[in-house]
Amino acid sequence: MPVARVVVDVMLKPEILDPQGQAVQRALPRLGFDGISDVRQGKRFELEVDGPVDDAALARIRQLAETFLANTVIEDFAVKVES
Amino acid sequence: MPVARVVVDVMLKPEILDPQGQAVQRALPRLGFDGISDVRQGKRFELEVDGPVDDAALARIRQLAETFLANTVIEDFAVKVES
Repeated sequence: MPVARVVVDVMLKPEILDPQGQAVQRALPRLGFDGISDVRQGKRFELEVDGPVDDAALARIRQLAETFLANTVIEDFAVKVES
Repeated sequence: MPVARVVVDVMLKPEILDPQGQAVQRALPRLGFDGISDVRQGKRFELEVDGPVDDAALARIRQLAETFLANTVIEDFAVKVES
């Protein structure tokens, strides 16, 4: 059966403080990396989907992301089909 | 100054066990989501870069990802410029 990969990216909303990303950003100059003004850290989920990734499958995955992978009070998510 | 966004995706190598992803995958049928044969969970970093994202800047970010964002013994990373 063909298997397709769908990626769900989950990031904190822009207005939510991101201490992990800030810690990375603050460490960069000490490590010799300048010119990076902001870092945000989030999660990436790679889902292997059995069968075709049609509109119905994508709608299901969007629902899955909304109810289970992301906390939509504080996080945004994006669903992408990977070629 | 123009600001560009560069994304660094960090995922466990395929041969490394991913208990977080497995926990998600095992929970899916219970939650009513079928047809997903594998889930891998990784990290996504969004870097805001001051100035142009030219080859030199990308080379620096690749070095940063390799030495600092990813543990290349167990993780793969990918650097992408976001439009």
